[in-house]
Amino acid sequence: MARLVYGRQLAEKRRKITEYVQRNPVLHDAGEQAFMTREQKYDDAARKTSEIFRRLEEFGTYPGEESFAHVINEVIGIDGYPLALQHVMFLPALLGQGDEQLKAKYAARAQRGEIIGTYAQTEMGHGTNLRALETTAHYDKKTQEFVIHSPTTSSIKWWPGNLGKSSSYAIVAAQLHIDGKAIGPHNFLVQLRCEKTHQPLKGILVGDIGPKISYNTTDNGFLKLDHVRIPREQMLMKHAKVLPDGTYVKPPHAKIGYGAMVHVRSHMIRAQAHMLAMAITIAIRYSAIRRQGEIRNGGGEVKILDYQTQQHRLFPQLARTYAYFFAGAEVVALYQKTLEKIDEGDVTLMTDLHAVTSGMKAVVSFETGNAIEQCRMACGGHGYSAASRFPEIYGVQIGGCTYEGENMVMLLQLARYLMKAADQCQGGQKLSPLLEYLKGKEKKSRLSDAEDREKLVKAFEYVSRSVVFRAHERLAALQKSGMSAEAAWQANAVEMTRASRAHTRLFIAQAFHQKVLSVKTADRKINNVLDQLCALFLNYELLDMSHYLLEDQYMTTKQIGIIRENVYRLLKDLRPNVVSLVDSFEISDRELRSVLGRRDGNVYDNLLKWAQSNPLNKEDVLPGFKTSLQPMMARAREASKL
Amino acid sequence: MARLVYGRQLAEKRRKITEYVQRNPVLHDAGEQAFMTREQKYDDAARKTSEIFRRLEEFGTYPGEESFAHVINEVIGIDGYPLALQHVMFLPALLGQGDEQLKAKYAARAQRGEIIGTYAQTEMGHGTNLRALETTAHYDKKTQEFVIHSPTTSSIKWWPGNLGKSSSYAIVAAQLHIDGKAIGPHNFLVQLRCEKTHQPLKGILVGDIGPKISYNTTDNGFLKLDHVRIPREQMLMKHAKVLPDGTYVKPPHAKIGYGAMVHVRSHMIRAQAHMLAMAITIAIRYSAIRRQGEIRNGGGEVKILDYQTQQHRLFPQLARTYAYFFAGAEVVALYQKTLEKIDEGDVTLMTDLHAVTSGMKAVVSFETGNAIEQCRMACGGHGYSAASRFPEIYGVQIGGCTYEGENMVMLLQLARYLMKAADQCQGGQKLSPLLEYLKGKEKKSRLSDAEDREKLVKAFEYVSRSVVFRAHERLAALQKSGMSAEAAWQANAVEMTRASRAHTRLFIAQAFHQKVLSVKTADRKINNVLDQLCALFLNYELLDMSHYLLEDQYMTTKQIGIIRENVYRLLKDLRPNVVSLVDSFEISDRELRSVLGRRDGNVYDNLLKWAQSNPLNKEDVLPGFKTSLQPMMARAREASKL
Repeated sequence: MARLVYGRQLAEKRRKITEYVQRNPVLHDAGEQAFMTREQKYDDAARKTSEIFRRLEEFGTYPGEESFAHVINEVIGIDGYPLALQHVMFLPALLGQGDEQLKAKYAARAQRGEIIGTYAQTEMGHGTNLRALETTAHYDKKTQEFVIHSPTTSSIKWWPGNLGKSSSYAIVAAQLHIDGKAIGPHNFLVQLRCEKTHQPLKGILVGDIGPKISYNTTDNGFLKLDHVRIPREQMLMKHAKVLPDGTYVKPPHAKIGYGAMVHVRSHMIRAQAHMLAMAITIAIRYSAIRRQGEIRNGGGEVKILDYQTQQHRLFPQLARTYAYFFAGAEVVALYQKTLEKIDEGDVTLMTDLHAVTSGMKAVVSFETGNAIEQCRMACGGHGYSAASRFPEIYGVQIGGCTYEGENMVMLLQLARYLMKAADQCQGGQKLSPLLEYLKGKEKKSRLSDAEDREKLVKAFEYVSRSVVFRAHERLAALQKSGMSAEAAWQANAVEMTRASRAHTRLFIAQAFHQKVLSVKTADRKINNVLDQLCALFLNYELLDMSHYLLEDQYMTTKQIGIIRENVYRLLKDLRPNVVSLVDSFEISDRELRSVLGRRDGNVYDNLLKWAQSNPLNKEDVLPGFKTSLQPMMARAREASKL
Repeated sequence: MARLVYGRQLAEKRRKITEYVQRNPVLHDAGEQAFMTREQKYDDAARKTSEIFRRLEEFGTYPGEESFAHVINEVIGIDGYPLALQHVMFLPALLGQGDEQLKAKYAARAQRGEIIGTYAQTEMGHGTNLRALETTAHYDKKTQEFVIHSPTTSSIKWWPGNLGKSSSYAIVAAQLHIDGKAIGPHNFLVQLRCEKTHQPLKGILVGDIGPKISYNTTDNGFLKLDHVRIPREQMLMKHAKVLPDGTYVKPPHAKIGYGAMVHVRSHMIRAQAHMLAMAITIAIRYSAIRRQGEIRNGGGEVKILDYQTQQHRLFPQLARTYAYFFAGAEVVALYQKTLEKIDEGDVTLMTDLHAVTSGMKAVVSFETGNAIEQCRMACGGHGYSAASRFPEIYGVQIGGCTYEGENMVMLLQLARYLMKAADQCQGGQKLSPLLEYLKGKEKKSRLSDAEDREKLVKAFEYVSRSVVFRAHERLAALQKSGMSAEAAWQANAVEMTRASRAHTRLFIAQAFHQKVLSVKTADRKINNVLDQLCALFLNYELLDMSHYLLEDQYMTTKQIGIIRENVYRLLKDLRPNVVSLVDSFEISDRELRSVLGRRDGNVYDNLLKWAQSNPLNKEDVLPGFKTSLQPMMARAREASKL
């Protein structure tokens, strides 16, 4: 099963990495991460980063590969590390947008780890709207330099990972000005700190932005630039250029250079799935050892996994984990295919890719957050403790709703594509294969008691089609009523986000369904359980969208009843297999770092050990008790004697 | 408006307290709480606790009063403090269940603050199922003592607030044994620590259970008892008794003594509403100063509060805040009325109260959690920072889903009441006024374009009725199919939680609707805006339950369309008033502790100041950078020279 989830090669590599880390204590945590201050976390992550990069050949993996993420997860964790942006943001931007001269000077040095870099785009007052960035880069013809400057507080670069304390270089997005004329946002390589002393250079105010929900091992940073001068050559000039005399040369294609975010979004889905895999592993294992309450009076306390409510909380999240792994692989495949086509000079797939990644990023990150919280709450009080590791998993994962494009913005970008598709569909134009279903005509579901997953997938198509066209009609009606195109777009925004969600849920359902169809393992038990997982996913999601199915009577109340009973039946059917299903994610105890989720189930003894070793227990009586509460109590005793 | 939310008296008291705290720097935070370690947090909370109890008369409030919670929120915060359980758990249990002798000895001392106590019921392996507690209390006739003992790791007391480091006494729930015979769980007062030195006494292993999502100022504790002997008189013997010769005297009424949890649950709803009030205050204020993106091309960046998607994220949460405040007041009123009736010897209301509090606790805590996360995510990246204070608000609030009765358990307790009510309804029996709607007959909604809130409330009644009876029918069908009553109950559990949720949502809708009807302020603008809030709440919630409305065609697709358009219209209508609506919660900047939520809107400058003062910026170069990363980079440089 692990081979299905990760692919044969990665599954094997993961195992080897896990074993290697197990054998090398220098790669182990210096202490319990949950008890560390941010300084201690950074310290330990820096130490382990250095140890990892020393051993890249032994690991047989390199930054950017999916197996490298496994090294990080095992050794450091999911909370970030000082070189986290080096290979996925800094280098791709440098290599993708820098000219040959700049690359020659810096890329190899960054690859070898001689310098640490990051990518600084967002500002305190500006996120997704690039055109509104305030940082300026004025070209000084005389010296052939750019003057990079933060004119206001809101223009201070804010949030970039590893910017605060680790990076000595940053690619900085700034508004290019030549001869007083604003040209628009461009990227510049700026040195921030001395390579020897690591002290900030003149004109550079840089630091860490402070504690967050999670990612507290990461030094997300701020950067204020005070008329910092850089040579002309440090503009990233593969596409747009500024010649020595100040002549501006436009880029050949407007959308080039915006691939970095799409790259990250394409690979985010599987990373999100992996965090859900961690959470569901913890929750199902713990539910299989925790006993509470009786089902039959006097029958003894039962495992909480045997309660229908607990199954209903957890099994759909397990099904989602598989769905997101498989749909995530589809997105990566589309990304690869798009790159290949672009190399052949064909950019048509870019629009599809952008739409798919936008929707997937938004829907998967949001649903995964809810799913992780369900896993956590299903573990009762212990889920609330850091010993469960849920707090960190949720904190890290839920960041995905915000970074790399805020979810609402993402949904509206997909909506633009969908509204255009609805136009094209009505105009009888050819549609991308991903949108073919919009031409469908089915108005009544044929779902019956007999199991038929095709009919369930058809229902997803219907939902998306109906919500897309409803939003499209409403948009037209608003314009017809006298609104400007822009005002109508605004007044229709929520409807359109609904369309984007429905379209994306269809994409996931199809990907899961197709995967299960295409897999024919030798093991009939695996085929069978995959079938059940997929069926649970489809039925559960449809039930969640049943209002769409009932509007315009696509389905009858009776058909919804069938779906509901399917869900209940599948919970029961899956019960015997769920523990093996989470085991097959092959997440080691080291990677999981969860007392509740231990593979051996020895939770309680270890919970006590964990608690006893926490810093608050170093002394029996806390200083604050002595200095404040003991005097208060003594005062009360004295007063009562008077 | 604040008077409507808090009542005139409390609103005035809140203001006075806020001003008093403002004038007395000794009551202010010693530093930024988000930067403190747990030890520092405890320290500062202990200091301020002592200062508060020194000033109770000046404040004119006492622990247990709603205005006292305001003192704590202003001075210490929402994350707990060392005496948090003294007046709401320890003393009520002692006073409610202890006999006169025991009360005489300890109650006044606890009230004066000479001793600190807590209530220790849950164990590491046992939560809500009291009968399964493992801690034992064997009566030793010879010495007239109880021997309190933790026989296993899973029997260790786990979670009680202030147990870890603050309390010197605890009321401990244990299984009473007399002459080798198990009698069932009873409560005992156990001294844990020396009153002078505060060192744990012999046989007592006590400590803090470690970091959690939030409540990290609180020393939730563990307690392992090794054959600890206490005098017979320290059993809480108001109801059940053990006589010196070992004779056991049964309590007169089985359910007595279980009022403590109901007390907490009754008052929890308004506390939850208050946390949502904090979150929505931050989100709406920030959305009114944050500008991002353009609606009209070239029209300049707009406040994010002007986007429909943002309004749709936030305004329903604002409406919920009011709904929960008002419905919470209803619950407290029912609680008071129940107590009065009990004093008159009438216990009939207890069942209603228990059902209402169970459902409200579950529904409100879950919805509030979602609402707070919507508020946070609506603030983009800055919402993720501790500077927003969302992380702490969510962490503290979401604990409410688990403590004082896990939500699923709560919903199933309410379900038992509803299934019984359905029986009674079908049997033509008299129902509690809270259940009268079950007798309703309406099968088609008469909702039309004309605004009519009564028809919306009717729809809530229909939904609850239909889901209750559907669950009831399914339960009967399962039994008829041959299942035992217990097995059928299990197999129907999810359906029944649906019934409980629908019933509770009706309760909230009615409470809000009735409140708005009953309020006739002199200010027409307030009446008008309350109307809009209530309408938004009703329409939004119904849309969320539209699948129930569409099943069996209670509503047509067109009627659902009316509801949806109502929501969109109300978002627009409310926009001009939302900032005043959050201001009217009168949450001071001190209480809010949020850089984003500052009343003066001066967010960006303060965000920079906040970040600069965080501990990671004490040094320009972190120790971990020097010891690990600099050598790594030097190594790479050396290697490249070879």
